Amino acid sequence: MQFTYEPVDADEARRQRAIYEPFTRAVRELLDATIRTEVGAEDIAAAQASIEAVTARLRAKQLDGPFGVRFTTEGQGMSWGNPVVGVRNPMAPPLTIEHGAEKCWTEFELGAAYEGPPDHVHGGISALILDHLLGEAASAGGSTPLFTGTISLRYLRGTPLGPLRSEAWIERVDGVKTYARGFISDAEGPTVEAEGVFIKPAWARDPQ
Amino acid sequence: MQFTYEPVDADEARRQRAIYEPFTRAVRELLDATIRTEVGAEDIAAAQASIEAVTARLRAKQLDGPFGVRFTTEGQGMSWGNPVVGVRNPMAPPLTIEHGAEKCWTEFELGAAYEGPPDHVHGGISALILDHLLGEAASAGGSTPLFTGTISLRYLRGTPLGPLRSEAWIERVDGVKTYARGFISDAEGPTVEAEGVFIKPAWARDPQ
Repeated sequence: MQFTYEPVDADEARRQRAIYEPFTRAVRELLDATIRTEVGAEDIAAAQASIEAVTARLRAKQLDGPFGVRFTTEGQGMSWGNPVVGVRNPMAPPLTIEHGAEKCWTEFELGAAYEGPPDHVHGGISALILDHLLGEAASAGGSTPLFTGTISLRYLRGTPLGPLRSEAWIERVDGVKTYARGFISDAEGPTVEAEGVFIKPAWARDPQ
Repeated sequence: MQFTYEPVDADEARRQRAIYEPFTRAVRELLDATIRTEVGAEDIAAAQASIEAVTARLRAKQLDGPFGVRFTTEGQGMSWGNPVVGVRNPMAPPLTIEHGAEKCWTEFELGAAYEGPPDHVHGGISALILDHLLGEAASAGGSTPLFTGTISLRYLRGTPLGPLRSEAWIERVDGVKTYARGFISDAEGPTVEAEGVFIKPAWARDPQ
């Protein structure tokens, strides 16, 4: 696994973010409109032609592969392509995760793109978010990557689309294994609970 | 939960699909290009303006809420907004699920939008796909919706971006609970295993 991009100067990271973040937000809006639109075939054909032209322009200069995980010179992670938190990934809500002394948490809103049962969040989207948040709690926002070993989810009731909250915290640490727990809740309380074991990869462990 | 849209005539469903499917595919390409582009600020600003214009045009007539789950007059499900299989959801790969007598399976490819660790699938994306596929196996492609009760995932190793396969099958049925299992694999074999319990909602159970 390649974590070895040249670190990006913090000013340069800010400059890039100012360009790409509003652009990605516009694509996120388009994604929602793509699902919900009821305009006719002619409008759709015109929209498709415009989008194909934009894509061609963007692809004139692009990375050969995916975005990867990069760091600033100050050690800040730049997971900009990440499907949960990536500010350059239109499929990410994206979550902004807050870190406290004992837990991390995030407040966010999920719309049409995340629907499973009618008006409710797809169960797998809850799993996606909790996997990410528990992993973030387990690594305590640190720059050492941890990988999910196992994760179990218990669905208490349907999670409605709309404003939601998620929290996660470390339960205990046992050698290279970190046990984390968390939940997603709406205004009425928790809807999904999760527990997971996160593992420090062999290459990131202290030498014996 | 609202499953009560007017059923759509099968010909009308085909007509709509022919319009929206290639359009959604174009937005999916744009999503990938949004993450990978390295063009400069001026090109990004122009792309953003074009996209905002397209979105406004699409939003001129749109659903008030999410797409929902609809059915054709022949009883075929139309989960077109679904984030895993939805042909109108640009964030869905989308998976095409095959049903055999003893299992269901799907072959698909994941690119930049699904990246967690560098060049690898986000663990939560594997959870999203397996939640969906196990649910599909549990309901045996039937029109009775089942909801995830619990799901547990075991990550054997990193899942590389690229071509993948997933399978799921019913392990046993116990009253309103259906136990399903499955995995995701690359060319070398399984990378993630899952087991889940899927529950028939009270309103869909046979009267006692």
